[in-house]
Amino acid sequence: MSLPTTPPSGFRDFLPDQVAARSRAMATIAGVYRSFGFQPVATSALEDLSVLTGQGGGENEKLIFKVLKRGEALERAQAEKTDFADMGLRFDLTLPLARWYSKHGSQLPHPFKAFHMGPVWRAERAQKGRYREFTQCDVDVIGSDSWGAEVEIIAAILTVFDQLGLHGVTVNLNDRRLVDLALAAAGVPEDKRGAACVIIDKLDKMEPAKVAAELELAVGATAAAALAKTIMTHAPGPEYSAIGKDEQAGLDKIVHAVKSLRPDAVIALTPNLMRGMGYYTGPVFEFRHPSLSGSLGGGGRYDKLTEKFGGQSTPACGGSIGFERLMLILEESGKAVGQVSPDAVVTVFSDELRGRAIEVGAALRAKGLSADVYPGSGKLKAQFKYADQKKAAYVVVIGPDEAARGVVQVKAMATGDEQALTLEEACVKIAARG
Amino acid sequence: MSLPTTPPSGFRDFLPDQVAARSRAMATIAGVYRSFGFQPVATSALEDLSVLTGQGGGENEKLIFKVLKRGEALERAQAEKTDFADMGLRFDLTLPLARWYSKHGSQLPHPFKAFHMGPVWRAERAQKGRYREFTQCDVDVIGSDSWGAEVEIIAAILTVFDQLGLHGVTVNLNDRRLVDLALAAAGVPEDKRGAACVIIDKLDKMEPAKVAAELELAVGATAAAALAKTIMTHAPGPEYSAIGKDEQAGLDKIVHAVKSLRPDAVIALTPNLMRGMGYYTGPVFEFRHPSLSGSLGGGGRYDKLTEKFGGQSTPACGGSIGFERLMLILEESGKAVGQVSPDAVVTVFSDELRGRAIEVGAALRAKGLSADVYPGSGKLKAQFKYADQKKAAYVVVIGPDEAARGVVQVKAMATGDEQALTLEEACVKIAARG
Repeated sequence: MSLPTTPPSGFRDFLPDQVAARSRAMATIAGVYRSFGFQPVATSALEDLSVLTGQGGGENEKLIFKVLKRGEALERAQAEKTDFADMGLRFDLTLPLARWYSKHGSQLPHPFKAFHMGPVWRAERAQKGRYREFTQCDVDVIGSDSWGAEVEIIAAILTVFDQLGLHGVTVNLNDRRLVDLALAAAGVPEDKRGAACVIIDKLDKMEPAKVAAELELAVGATAAAALAKTIMTHAPGPEYSAIGKDEQAGLDKIVHAVKSLRPDAVIALTPNLMRGMGYYTGPVFEFRHPSLSGSLGGGGRYDKLTEKFGGQSTPACGGSIGFERLMLILEESGKAVGQVSPDAVVTVFSDELRGRAIEVGAALRAKGLSADVYPGSGKLKAQFKYADQKKAAYVVVIGPDEAARGVVQVKAMATGDEQALTLEEACVKIAARG
Repeated sequence: MSLPTTPPSGFRDFLPDQVAARSRAMATIAGVYRSFGFQPVATSALEDLSVLTGQGGGENEKLIFKVLKRGEALERAQAEKTDFADMGLRFDLTLPLARWYSKHGSQLPHPFKAFHMGPVWRAERAQKGRYREFTQCDVDVIGSDSWGAEVEIIAAILTVFDQLGLHGVTVNLNDRRLVDLALAAAGVPEDKRGAACVIIDKLDKMEPAKVAAELELAVGATAAAALAKTIMTHAPGPEYSAIGKDEQAGLDKIVHAVKSLRPDAVIALTPNLMRGMGYYTGPVFEFRHPSLSGSLGGGGRYDKLTEKFGGQSTPACGGSIGFERLMLILEESGKAVGQVSPDAVVTVFSDELRGRAIEVGAALRAKGLSADVYPGSGKLKAQFKYADQKKAAYVVVIGPDEAARGVVQVKAMATGDEQALTLEEACVKIAARG
């Protein structure tokens, strides 16, 4: 019986051009984050389950991949009918960051501007464009209650999109406190507000009428009617504008600052924006692009999260780029650049002449060129095919004649031009794409 | 009850300077691999357990972190007393690569030069310098039975060490077929040879006398005495040189080519070199550094591995850099460079002047500088402390007076020099470190 050649359902393999395009985009993102003064942070893929559960991760808590206990611990768990797992794969980067900061915060600049990029895992139902392993690129400001933190985060993320050539991104903005005020004003009791938010959050994927019906079922007709005029709307109406003057003024400051920085930015108050996570406590925001039905990323303020790790209360705010969706748009618009091709393929005429080919490769590399010495023992024809497959700019041939004369034959793959050159001349020619 | 602030035992957090140093080293490694014509590959963190077990992964197969089944699948497993897991975290990058190649090989250049870098997981007993999550940086040549493949891999890895400023790396070399011939010559029956290899492999960490005793117990006194003269030795003796002329000639070619490329390289035949993995079929090699008791990486030929994935038989060979050990040596020798400091911290005088600070930050960034706009609302004193903690080269202050005059105050942190400049002048000064 032969083994599976595909990764498990919902997981992916990447081909060289894809890996190159992804690395390049990651490098751009890290470069932009750094240029804003954010500093890189890394945490482990696995966390204690206690860190991942019950911290306001919302629906994602149900999607944790748990790691089976081992040896005696597993036997004990089976015998005592207790949990089979005490660790899980992280489903976002915010909870690990809150844990990390609680441990290391005292050694860090204050406030701390962090960026944190890496894979996260969720046992989502596998479907097109939704994966069980995907990358997030987060920026966070920990230790600041100023709206300046939100502006830094939103501006950094918008700059990323810019640098990657992605135009037309819009920002939606809301405040969890406004949501709460609207729910209170509509008479929704506290214990039903979370459920109401989850329902309104579905406006993204579900027909508005269905969402309205579900909401009515959950909070009653009167409350639902009131909410229809406040937080069920996509643009703020007069009823929404009448609540939470202070919170609205805070959002206005953010909008104003982002616009002054980027006059072309489309950033707007969006009453029905919820963002799933229970840990948000203030402004929340979301990035959208016309070519995508879901969001391209988002974030918000989570002032209470570090408290859970026993540290003092630390205001914090963060944003995340959904890297897979970003790559999807870049690929579809032909902006995912990632070709990996060597400057030259150095052919190996025979086993006896491999040593010379290896030396020539090293000489080219010493000049900063990429030189791919053919690693097999095929015929020259196969080696030219190899050079073609790798989209090499030049092929360097060293037969017995060239070896004896101390030259190399350089062929430009684009033109077919061929010249016998000294090694030094060959380096100059290839470097100059001459 | 407060939550744990440390990662699970054996897992690690990284501080900004560490992340920066690691990213930098990874970029250097990727750059060298690319310069040799290796192309990047990426696979998922999780694999079907069938891919990870029974493929010659040796002791590592016992160290797999398995992922608990979910929902109904778990209930069924409990009811039917079958396995609780069908996926696991990869413990190396070779098995996933073999799977990947079996799926995608037909679309790739032939032979295929791959590089594959990323975290792997092993449930090792946690101890100093041994982690449960660690990074490997692999290079592989798939589809070539030429010793040129080994040379490319060893040369690329030696170049990585060079580029990172790590000198004095030695290469040990052996051939699994020589080991097998020696075991056969000593009269060790086939079914005991694997166990014998595992025992000899312990010479790394265990006293030679103890290893010899264990070996005698396993294969008998006569065989052990014969092996003591062949593959139990660190340098080849006459008895070792008498076996497997062809295989020895193959190793000589590799040694010769590496030495021609790097005349200072110390590369030597090492009869007692085993390398743990059962999937090796030919030459095996290992990199060592005087400051480290274990190896810094290694690899070998695994010609039979892709067969298991149902594809045609494909000769293959690969090498891996143990990234954590590499970083350890670089850190200890002060070569792990990773400071992350902004060119300028832009202070925020007041909430009203934040807009101006944000604009100044953007202007600096537009000139290619990194500008860290203070994200909090603290006093100027706290902001200077922040700039100091972040090791910023300059601090830019814009008070009401500067804002009114259209200038900024630029302070060089190293000298304390302060000047009022136009924004344009400030950019020039900071860019020139003037």
